[in-house]
Amino acid sequence: MVKVSFQGELGAYSEEASINFFGNVVELMPLPYLSDVFKSVENGKAEFAVVPIENTLEGSVSETYDLLIGAGVKIIGEEVLRVRHCFMANPGVKMDDIREVWSHPQALSQCRKYIESIRLKPVPYYDTAGSAKAIAEGKVMNAGAIASCRAARHYGLNVLAEGIEDSPNNYTRFIIIGNGIAEISNREKTSIIFSVRHVPGALYRALKAFADNGVNMTKIESRPTKEKPWEYFFFVDFMGREDDNDVRNAIDELKKEVSFIKVLGSYPAVSD
Amino acid sequence: MVKVSFQGELGAYSEEASINFFGNVVELMPLPYLSDVFKSVENGKAEFAVVPIENTLEGSVSETYDLLIGAGVKIIGEEVLRVRHCFMANPGVKMDDIREVWSHPQALSQCRKYIESIRLKPVPYYDTAGSAKAIAEGKVMNAGAIASCRAARHYGLNVLAEGIEDSPNNYTRFIIIGNGIAEISNREKTSIIFSVRHVPGALYRALKAFADNGVNMTKIESRPTKEKPWEYFFFVDFMGREDDNDVRNAIDELKKEVSFIKVLGSYPAVSD
Repeated sequence: MVKVSFQGELGAYSEEASINFFGNVVELMPLPYLSDVFKSVENGKAEFAVVPIENTLEGSVSETYDLLIGAGVKIIGEEVLRVRHCFMANPGVKMDDIREVWSHPQALSQCRKYIESIRLKPVPYYDTAGSAKAIAEGKVMNAGAIASCRAARHYGLNVLAEGIEDSPNNYTRFIIIGNGIAEISNREKTSIIFSVRHVPGALYRALKAFADNGVNMTKIESRPTKEKPWEYFFFVDFMGREDDNDVRNAIDELKKEVSFIKVLGSYPAVSD
Repeated sequence: MVKVSFQGELGAYSEEASINFFGNVVELMPLPYLSDVFKSVENGKAEFAVVPIENTLEGSVSETYDLLIGAGVKIIGEEVLRVRHCFMANPGVKMDDIREVWSHPQALSQCRKYIESIRLKPVPYYDTAGSAKAIAEGKVMNAGAIASCRAARHYGLNVLAEGIEDSPNNYTRFIIIGNGIAEISNREKTSIIFSVRHVPGALYRALKAFADNGVNMTKIESRPTKEKPWEYFFFVDFMGREDDNDVRNAIDELKKEVSFIKVLGSYPAVSD
């Protein structure tokens, strides 16, 4: 059985993304920190890991980008999950008994209208699934949790309301990291990291390598290098495969302009 | 006296940046939320505000970028602050009495080596200056706070150690927002926001407008639009002034490629 690690408690949205990608026959390894998740793939304790990289409302997951810089892993796929928040409480608890709602601050802010309509006090928690677990294990009877419906099933909670998020445009893109090579598909995407020298026009000349070869960028993201002030790593996703001719030419030209480059992998594209 | 608002408690790093930029003769308005700070300038309760936009270790401040999209204000300047963390406690408290260190999670993680060397338990707090205030007002005798030395003076705490951050490369760039026009200098920077249609090559053609006119980008940052999945606002800083010929030409060409554009302002450049 394939071993897949993710960050968070059982019932986390990352677990849902893992099952959507790999199917139900997987051995799931929930780990407390994202850095542990990367390590579990590097040292072979897990074959793959599923980690969030961006959300349509919150933006990029900085920690994932930072870990990709130093990690000895490849991206072998991506998965897009529509985030549907559920409100849950212990069996026997009625709506009228509930005074507080526990969840991760992002989930609380994404369900603000619902929380205001039922007049509960929001209580920030480190994790969505963790808040469900705490309410179940602590037999808390005056609070509910916001998490995935999967978390409710895991911890034996009753779902009192489903799809309570304010905006339907709530998607998280996950990447699947591993040591192997991705499946081949007829529509692929490649992810790279590079940094440029801190000289005028350097970023433009780097991006020109893609345009001159007809390679279409789908995403650009920057993170500070942490070594020199105002120097950045750039993360670029583009359509195509590492060994396509146009992609190979673009990367060859890019190499002349950059001070660091790393190809994270080519994999079947889900989003664009 | 000029009224300047910032987010946080008195003694926050934003206060230090405000005084570095405006000098000591200012009326400081600390406000609890960044959105209130923007509003205070829009409704004229403050003439200016000083808000953090990026840190060399943590990266961009997403909330500031998101607020700039809808805000009716201009950027009129920038200020770079070297972040020096101090460890402080109530008068009479000795190192041996202290068991815990309270601070914002980012400050705790930036001082990890120091905290481990004196074997204290890190306790996350919503704000650096707020942790100093809580220790002072609560007369807490078994905990210290990590904040600016300015916060220690504000709340009557003793500084037990100075410059305790792991990395000396810890700078925060602040922008100064207001309703007026910036001073003119011989080295200026302009900040803009734009979004492109979700079609192949759109981002590249937008950036080409800068290169074709010899305009040097110094920063590019993306944030999700929150309206359509995988569509982004791009924030670009470049050298030059809005009414320079080359900048005007670049913006004119850019306008043909974008679905939204907003010039945030031209102002004297401090960093590049």
